[in-house]
Amino acid sequence: MSEPYSPSTKRPLVAIMTDFGSGDGDVGVMKGVIAGITPDVHIIDVTHDVAPQNIPSGAWILASGYRYYPRGTVFICVVDPGVGSTRGAIAVHAGDWFFVGPDNGLFTYIYNEQPVHAAVVLNNPAYHLPEVSSTFHGRDIFAPTGAHLARGVSLHELGEQVDPAALQRLAAVTPEKHGSRIAAHIIHIDHFGNLITSIPLTMVPTLFDSPHARIDFPASQAVVDQRRRFFAEGEVDSQPFIYADSSGFVGIAVRNGSAARVLGVHVGTPITFTLDF
Amino acid sequence: MSEPYSPSTKRPLVAIMTDFGSGDGDVGVMKGVIAGITPDVHIIDVTHDVAPQNIPSGAWILASGYRYYPRGTVFICVVDPGVGSTRGAIAVHAGDWFFVGPDNGLFTYIYNEQPVHAAVVLNNPAYHLPEVSSTFHGRDIFAPTGAHLARGVSLHELGEQVDPAALQRLAAVTPEKHGSRIAAHIIHIDHFGNLITSIPLTMVPTLFDSPHARIDFPASQAVVDQRRRFFAEGEVDSQPFIYADSSGFVGIAVRNGSAARVLGVHVGTPITFTLDF
Amino acid sequence: MSEPYSPSTKRPLVAIMTDFGSGDGDVGVMKGVIAGITPDVHIIDVTHDVAPQNIPSGAWILASGYRYYPRGTVFICVVDPGVGSTRGAIAVHAGDWFFVGPDNGLFTYIYNEQPVHAAVVLNNPAYHLPEVSSTFHGRDIFAPTGAHLARGVSLHELGEQVDPAALQRLAAVTPEKHGSRIAAHIIHIDHFGNLITSIPLTMVPTLFDSPHARIDFPASQAVVDQRRRFFAEGEVDSQPFIYADSSGFVGIAVRNGSAARVLGVHVGTPITFTLDF
Repeated sequence: MSEPYSPSTKRPLVAIMTDFGSGDGDVGVMKGVIAGITPDVHIIDVTHDVAPQNIPSGAWILASGYRYYPRGTVFICVVDPGVGSTRGAIAVHAGDWFFVGPDNGLFTYIYNEQPVHAAVVLNNPAYHLPEVSSTFHGRDIFAPTGAHLARGVSLHELGEQVDPAALQRLAAVTPEKHGSRIAAHIIHIDHFGNLITSIPLTMVPTLFDSPHARIDFPASQAVVDQRRRFFAEGEVDSQPFIYADSSGFVGIAVRNGSAARVLGVHVGTPITFTLDF
Repeated sequence: MSEPYSPSTKRPLVAIMTDFGSGDGDVGVMKGVIAGITPDVHIIDVTHDVAPQNIPSGAWILASGYRYYPRGTVFICVVDPGVGSTRGAIAVHAGDWFFVGPDNGLFTYIYNEQPVHAAVVLNNPAYHLPEVSSTFHGRDIFAPTGAHLARGVSLHELGEQVDPAALQRLAAVTPEKHGSRIAAHIIHIDHFGNLITSIPLTMVPTLFDSPHARIDFPASQAVVDQRRRFFAEGEVDSQPFIYADSSGFVGIAVRNGSAARVLGVHVGTPITFTLDF
Repeated sequence: MSEPYSPSTKRPLVAIMTDFGSGDGDVGVMKGVIAGITPDVHIIDVTHDVAPQNIPSGAWILASGYRYYPRGTVFICVVDPGVGSTRGAIAVHAGDWFFVGPDNGLFTYIYNEQPVHAAVVLNNPAYHLPEVSSTFHGRDIFAPTGAHLARGVSLHELGEQVDPAALQRLAAVTPEKHGSRIAAHIIHIDHFGNLITSIPLTMVPTLFDSPHARIDFPASQAVVDQRRRFFAEGEVDSQPFIYADSSGFVGIAVRNGSAARVLGVHVGTPITFTLDF
């Protein structure tokens, strides 16, 4: 995928993604820390509703949108079941952006899609809060580090350089093609109940040109073999159809309804996609 | 209703309302696009929890608050079941504000309450993202358009002018008075379970002076005929009462409780309001 | 507890906490009002998901994080079941921060932990919106007052000074120690299902050094007597353990699970904590 547009941020810009929800005040505290360090910062919430401790889900949500943020944006990402253990804390300069968070695979898509210019472990305590807890590195390490990066501190100030090849990655985020078939799974269900598959649109360039395309759900024996270019195309019925999701992945939707409900599907449900490539 | 106060925004101010929820990262992506175009922007969330694809509900929420935003605020509003179809995309200058979104009735109250100075269809691709998807115009058209408006681009740059009379409107958002009766409905249920009716307070100037006022729920035969000026007035009981909601509409509440639960009412439930006018 | 770090805000900074949820547009309206008065403001959401009308819960959430916001931050806090009644509206300068909201105990922890330099009742209408409703002081009084404070208006301009000793406080937010026992309760359940007790860590300095520590739940006869320093320490099991929550209070967690679900506990559940002090 090419970059959709490419302004540079002219003001410190921090984007935050967590699995903290919005009820506890933790995200607010991170922003308070950031604003104290970088007063002219602009902070954007990616989302705070990543499924708790679900690294693959967080990795995908980040992947679906980071390209649309200005060059220079610092992403602070905290889905961190290993907080306080020996898992690393890292900052990475990849493509035109910076990524700060735990070294647990959350940035796998980024490493796959962007050149990694440099990566460091966050072992310089000068850029952490004076007191670091063992349960809230979002506040004590990642927020201050990201804020310092956003105000112009060099990545190399933050800690020791690490070999990008040594960074943790999730296994197999991109499915494999075998002949005309791709074994994949549902990676995300959006707010409208649309199902997003793990198949990047770049893998299926003939999606709308091929005479046939179908998605099988082995568990329920359901089959989806209609295609539509946009939600309001075709009948208002409860027939699920395949479409090109704006995240850059193949999706399945029901017009004015929830494909997740109609098909009884969850995140992780396996699918088989068949297409004349 | 008069304008409650009227500062002009001295900084680009964009307010966003969608039905996207907060879990998918889509709102963050829109903000990333906006921040790339207008770095000194201030972005405010109206809400992202409009009931999915519910245009009347989104229209009402926008109506209940837009007057309180500074003059010059650009509202980007996306409740857009018709995305990708032939429904128009518009920007409107009405009263002291700008409104960007689909031409599907979402701005009906605005047209009713404010002078519409000018409206354009968004057919100048110079103000869209380079690549426009058929499912996410919030990101590809409305966010960049709103950002350009906020940084000072003229409305007329964005596309061809259209006759305000030709803009889509929802039928009958304001109920009609027949003698001492108004046939109306529940237009919104707020976070506390208060029921907001479709009756503007301006239609019932004698609400607290008239000797009698009552609301009938024909479906359940429930009747509410008490009035209170504020929530903490009167007994702590589960008796529903009529009050003047701060949105500018007649409301029904239960002290320290949920009128929605007590009365078993949903958005859309018809009511009959009776008052000595 | 000492202040974790102490930058001064160099830009007007307003933090908002309410029980309004995010679906009604009310928080957006408050921000619109603030932005109209103080265009260069930075607004941070503490949370808007305080349990409806639950003052002790809001008071605790505020207490768990305010220290991390820069000096000079203006907190606007609205959990206000008494809106429109005779309950006071106040602004308080305590420690390095300002607090604006109803005088109903919401700032109890602040008064306990910080020197109160001055407090005023908000009876100068020059700093309110021109028209004040009886149901939405967040919009009509607290937002404009907070915005004026943030732009540099003196606290004393906002209304008559009041004796800090006369401000409303919640009874007994801090539990009492009797010998080796503390009778306390669950004050908060976080997004991950971790239970936060009402026991400040400062009351139990030997938490990890004492040979024994246990928490009894009299209602269910459950006992928790394991301690861990961080979530990923020890086995992946569903054994609840005691830990030091980053909010500054004793917590109970289950690794990769919900202690609330495992223990069947709610906010308010009484506990007895036993430790060799």
